[in-house]
Amino acid sequence: MNKSFKIPFKGRGHSYSQEEIDLVSEIMRDSDTLTQGKYLKLFEQKYKDFLGVDYTFAMSSATSALEIAAQLLCLSDKDEVIIPSHTYTSTAYPFVKKGGKVVWADIDFESRVVNAETIKSKITNKTKAVVVVHLYGYLADMPEIMQLCADNNLVLIEDCAQSLGTSLDGKRAGTFGDMSIFSHHSQKNISTLGEGGVLVVKNPEHAQIVPMLRHNGHIGYQDQEHYWKPAMSNVDFPKLNGIYIEPNNYCLGEPQCAVGSMIIDRVDEVNLLKRSRAIQFIDHLSQFEQLVFHRVDNERHNYQHLVAFVQNDKRDQFINKLFIDKGIQCVVQYYPLHRYPYYEKHGLGTADCPNTELFFDNMVSFPFYETMRDSEIDYMLESVISVLKSI
Amino acid sequence: MNKSFKIPFKGRGHSYSQEEIDLVSEIMRDSDTLTQGKYLKLFEQKYKDFLGVDYTFAMSSATSALEIAAQLLCLSDKDEVIIPSHTYTSTAYPFVKKGGKVVWADIDFESRVVNAETIKSKITNKTKAVVVVHLYGYLADMPEIMQLCADNNLVLIEDCAQSLGTSLDGKRAGTFGDMSIFSHHSQKNISTLGEGGVLVVKNPEHAQIVPMLRHNGHIGYQDQEHYWKPAMSNVDFPKLNGIYIEPNNYCLGEPQCAVGSMIIDRVDEVNLLKRSRAIQFIDHLSQFEQLVFHRVDNERHNYQHLVAFVQNDKRDQFINKLFIDKGIQCVVQYYPLHRYPYYEKHGLGTADCPNTELFFDNMVSFPFYETMRDSEIDYMLESVISVLKSI
Repeated sequence: MNKSFKIPFKGRGHSYSQEEIDLVSEIMRDSDTLTQGKYLKLFEQKYKDFLGVDYTFAMSSATSALEIAAQLLCLSDKDEVIIPSHTYTSTAYPFVKKGGKVVWADIDFESRVVNAETIKSKITNKTKAVVVVHLYGYLADMPEIMQLCADNNLVLIEDCAQSLGTSLDGKRAGTFGDMSIFSHHSQKNISTLGEGGVLVVKNPEHAQIVPMLRHNGHIGYQDQEHYWKPAMSNVDFPKLNGIYIEPNNYCLGEPQCAVGSMIIDRVDEVNLLKRSRAIQFIDHLSQFEQLVFHRVDNERHNYQHLVAFVQNDKRDQFINKLFIDKGIQCVVQYYPLHRYPYYEKHGLGTADCPNTELFFDNMVSFPFYETMRDSEIDYMLESVISVLKSI
Repeated sequence: MNKSFKIPFKGRGHSYSQEEIDLVSEIMRDSDTLTQGKYLKLFEQKYKDFLGVDYTFAMSSATSALEIAAQLLCLSDKDEVIIPSHTYTSTAYPFVKKGGKVVWADIDFESRVVNAETIKSKITNKTKAVVVVHLYGYLADMPEIMQLCADNNLVLIEDCAQSLGTSLDGKRAGTFGDMSIFSHHSQKNISTLGEGGVLVVKNPEHAQIVPMLRHNGHIGYQDQEHYWKPAMSNVDFPKLNGIYIEPNNYCLGEPQCAVGSMIIDRVDEVNLLKRSRAIQFIDHLSQFEQLVFHRVDNERHNYQHLVAFVQNDKRDQFINKLFIDKGIQCVVQYYPLHRYPYYEKHGLGTADCPNTELFFDNMVSFPFYETMRDSEIDYMLESVISVLKSI
């Protein structure tokens, strides 16, 4: 389908430098192992340094990171987990699978993310955890949400799939919660060859068992008579809060870890480029009241996605004209999860989330990736102005 | 640890050609998407052609493929699944996680894999499925096992993690069972950049839902008013035999799929090289009765691993002398699963598998990968002879 668009909504967020490409070639040529090697350690170390945290774990995907986060909660079917309905499905379904009852939180209309107020209204005496999603690249009101979680003894999880590198008062997304996850999927501002994620935990007990949960239950022996006795490594079953936690295989290969370890040095640069382009785009459209953007000209937003609310029920007409007349592929994002058959069938088909419904039904997401040429941005801007004038 | 060995037991099975390295560079540079794109389709198509089957699905790992295979069985806790205890843990734990009761089958002493007899003795009226592992690269007695499964109405799953490209009377491993899985982990004869696997299914109903189970429950809409309405794609929950099956994220990125699609053309060549080297090695040691190899000079064995039984309780001495005196890192493989704490804690700590116990306690696995130089093989052979003479 992309072929027919002048500006497709691309499945890819950024380009690789020649140095990054060369590193992958070098690993393919020379590395002693292609998984569980030195680049895994390097990637995790550089991530720790970047965020300023103690424990980071590379994963096969952000979903994998969320699956383990959900495991670490040791949920029973009485436990409730508050999650925004306006997010990608991977934010929520791992918690459903692990037996929790998801309670949908609404977004703040202006910022398009949850806040302390929208979360607070969903807290009951069964609430065990809150998942905050810094959607579209905007870091939510974490100090207030942390206070709310502390007051109510709730585990706080940050879904930073779209917000790597953002910060509030110098503190990075992913360092506020008890756990946080990141995504390096193809569409993200940095990708580890198409798939990949990271899990961050704060609890040392969690940090000890995550490698086992990620790698098939493997754990080294404390003492071995010989390196091969009783076996090369042990396979065990970690216990947390009296509950056994099942292992998985969520390992990330060395070429992917190597790319991640190098490209993380460029995150702030990619974010800055995208933010300055987004602000320019938004400001050029400031006289058009039909489009309502969330304008944040600082490091709290990385503009992973550039989205707007379209006034007066004109959204479909707007997207269609950009598509038909201009060859620009806008999309809609983050169908309220409670509307999907998956959640309906799980008894999660209703939600009191008016802002989510209103925003989704009137929103547009523009093509917006690091590799867009200035001329493409200019063409998109002209096209948007032309279409807005015509509708 | 590898640094101190003249010949390490390497974490890597093969080298990449310049063409394969260039393809990854090209995708990093130019591909429109880094996941769920044309190389996924190409890899799956070439796999279908290679095996001569209808449905193949690239996965993030062989474990992921086994997790989905286990889901497709729709197990209840009454259902028994017969699995060899002599295998890697990923063969078994997905079935434990999905609620089945694992029953351990013994191996045949000579071939080191299960056969119709060792399976038959474990069948009860609760048995639902059998997992056959073509361990070390040797294709088990599939015609007899297929007949046994047909007679007893059992689902047959082949774990071909180590046996890609092997065949029996011209029929490839992975084409006998109802489902089969392959691994492209770093140590395998072909690897998709360190991690990766493939699931093969025969049932069209299974084939229809596997993409959803792999990709977060995503499924296209039948009809859409516009490409963005009601959303970009649906998220649903497939039902099989009246039971809902939970989705996962087991996607494999485009660079990995691309490498797989190219390197599959070389599988037979890599297997042939390893087999001819294995046969030479075995034949050069034929006068030493202390080492018992499984010698198979045809396409039924790909010698993913080169292993031997060491007579007269000399195994540890043998490995230790090769390690200390010769700098050769032999290992032991496939600790009987029922001995691991993970399985003990699941109530699976006992097994009537005398061949498994005897073989494991006396086996050695030699360093053996496609990139070994002839001089290294020669050195290993001389060293083995020297050590055998001394013990």
